[in-house]
Amino acid sequence: MTQPIRTVTVLGATGSVGQSTLDLIERNRGAYEVLALTAHRDVAGLAASAVRVGARQAVIADSSLYGALSDALAGTGIEAIAGEEAVVDAAAAGADWTMAAIVGTAGLRPVMAALRQGKTVALANKESLVSAGDVMIAAARESGARLLPVDSEHNAVFQCFDRERPGAVRRIILTASGGPFRRASIDEMRRVTPAQAVAHPVWAMGAKISVDSATLMNKGLELIEAFHLFPLDAEQFDVVVHPQSVIHSLVEYVDGSFLAQMGSPDMRIPIAHALAWPSRMETPCERLDLVKISHLDFEAPDLERFPALALAKQVLREGGAKSAILNASNEVAVASFLDSRLAFLDIATIAYETLQEYAPPAPTSIDEVLEIDRQARRIARDLVGKCPI
Amino acid sequence: MTQPIRTVTVLGATGSVGQSTLDLIERNRGAYEVLALTAHRDVAGLAASAVRVGARQAVIADSSLYGALSDALAGTGIEAIAGEEAVVDAAAAGADWTMAAIVGTAGLRPVMAALRQGKTVALANKESLVSAGDVMIAAARESGARLLPVDSEHNAVFQCFDRERPGAVRRIILTASGGPFRRASIDEMRRVTPAQAVAHPVWAMGAKISVDSATLMNKGLELIEAFHLFPLDAEQFDVVVHPQSVIHSLVEYVDGSFLAQMGSPDMRIPIAHALAWPSRMETPCERLDLVKISHLDFEAPDLERFPALALAKQVLREGGAKSAILNASNEVAVASFLDSRLAFLDIATIAYETLQEYAPPAPTSIDEVLEIDRQARRIARDLVGKCPI
Repeated sequence: MTQPIRTVTVLGATGSVGQSTLDLIERNRGAYEVLALTAHRDVAGLAASAVRVGARQAVIADSSLYGALSDALAGTGIEAIAGEEAVVDAAAAGADWTMAAIVGTAGLRPVMAALRQGKTVALANKESLVSAGDVMIAAARESGARLLPVDSEHNAVFQCFDRERPGAVRRIILTASGGPFRRASIDEMRRVTPAQAVAHPVWAMGAKISVDSATLMNKGLELIEAFHLFPLDAEQFDVVVHPQSVIHSLVEYVDGSFLAQMGSPDMRIPIAHALAWPSRMETPCERLDLVKISHLDFEAPDLERFPALALAKQVLREGGAKSAILNASNEVAVASFLDSRLAFLDIATIAYETLQEYAPPAPTSIDEVLEIDRQARRIARDLVGKCPI
Repeated sequence: MTQPIRTVTVLGATGSVGQSTLDLIERNRGAYEVLALTAHRDVAGLAASAVRVGARQAVIADSSLYGALSDALAGTGIEAIAGEEAVVDAAAAGADWTMAAIVGTAGLRPVMAALRQGKTVALANKESLVSAGDVMIAAARESGARLLPVDSEHNAVFQCFDRERPGAVRRIILTASGGPFRRASIDEMRRVTPAQAVAHPVWAMGAKISVDSATLMNKGLELIEAFHLFPLDAEQFDVVVHPQSVIHSLVEYVDGSFLAQMGSPDMRIPIAHALAWPSRMETPCERLDLVKISHLDFEAPDLERFPALALAKQVLREGGAKSAILNASNEVAVASFLDSRLAFLDIATIAYETLQEYAPPAPTSIDEVLEIDRQARRIARDLVGKCPI
């Protein structure tokens, strides 16, 4: 690669996206200089990763683990730092490129700090746009930061979207695998167990996101993220069910052209795209073989059996604080479902009822987003408590 | 549309591509000023088209039709001109945008004249790249002309190809419908009649191109065109059979991303893309509905049953005069097949044998291309005469 060396920071380096990012950085030694890696509590993983890519700093969010990290890095020359503020400081240190892969609302303040530097932020933290989209996008606009989406759907749209001519775009269409209950009857869905819900047909992923994929809430939240990433109206975002998940999403233009990005289900492809952008880098990913795949299917999502998607679409149209409430209450509901304290089809009901009970004004700061998130979780927990199973 | 008015010339205005171009120009009155329309012999169609879009000049290639054209345009203020040289002059008049939609080798000299102006040429004339690719591309490079492909496959690649970073592209994959004999046995293919061969499953088109689609020669010639349009090596071009023809072609990048362009089978989509490029224009085309289409299939082309594709791939690798010979001998063979003087599977044989018999040096001018074309046709006709049916 002939591009100049870029400085890189990876927030959430020990998770799956963080590790894939480091894997790609390691394959392109010489192109990147790693300023800092951060992790929540995984000292051993963080230390090993920092050594592997020659990071200058390793930051552990849990300050009680400072001693352990220090010991693990003794003699490596890598600086050990600890504490949640240190994670924010690492994000604010001005790396040319920051991977924002911290999971959950813990990611909000570091992402905001990174965006304020006016550099490039590869975004894998869902809450940044779902819960705090308006606040984040305003900060990016003010600083001139470039947001590169890492989620396979949004990355696909990014690759197909003419950013210089958004008026030429008619519609963005996110593809959804449809989850394990694509063909289930509503009666079967009433009796879905946690074990059934976490069996995702295409992507290997955690329990929470597997349930979101089974309810299609995941796709609803992605619609909200897409709305913040691409300057179109709420009605210009759509979902099509595509069980093979080979086409990661599509952009329809006013002339009737559809552009689509496809690939193997390997997160290293969108991560590599964000890491090398506007260039491209080789990846070791399995190459898509359309002949082997043989066929691709498409169908309309059933909003009756997947009320979470209908609810998310409504939230998208209404905006304000609602998407933060949707996200928080959904998390509580999913945790309750996984804990066998809530029926599968009541996940969306809890989110709907939380939205009915709680209608604060639109947040104007990350602190306000975090407060809305806390209140929504509290209300959702109360509602779960009242819900007969 | 806020773009400045562009001057436009349509070479081959009365054919299907020419008429679709005029249809789009008419829908965007005010954005385009039509300098000249040309036609071969269709006086009535040319005059009506010229009046419809307010062209300054109408040029009929057959000089014996000057009087008829003059009469048809009397009182309209549109200048009537005639003769093959007048067509070349119209192409050389320096329109900002020229549609090159003359069919066959008759298009070569006008396309060359248009390319020498250093403006934008939308290319629908197959021979320009198949028979005269090296000569045409050298001329475009010298003048700085921009070539925009109008063929649905090449236009799809153009929409997906990163022209600033061709090194990031791993492969170009043209899709082929597979034609009417996709599932036929080789025995059935030996007995194919002209009527069976002209029944194309997706696109409505003429007899010659339908046969080329049935033999897959069409796809082979498109590989050669793609090679001239996009700066990759011969081995980086591939074909996949995709019966629905919804995906018009794909570009594979080194990171594992595939970008694809899709659309309804309506030539106005690629024409509109070329006409508005780098902007987009609304078209009245039917919108692609993936849910209605429901599924897309892919399979590998069978080079044994479709020897024309294998032959074209070999010609692509060898270059020089071979592609002009392939095109000319194929035309003679297809005409003979349509005339029931040649068996379907012998179409490729005639092309193969012509290539064996005739091996001139690579042409360096359009005149040399035309001479090779003439010689190849003569040899192919002789070979057909010797072929038992």
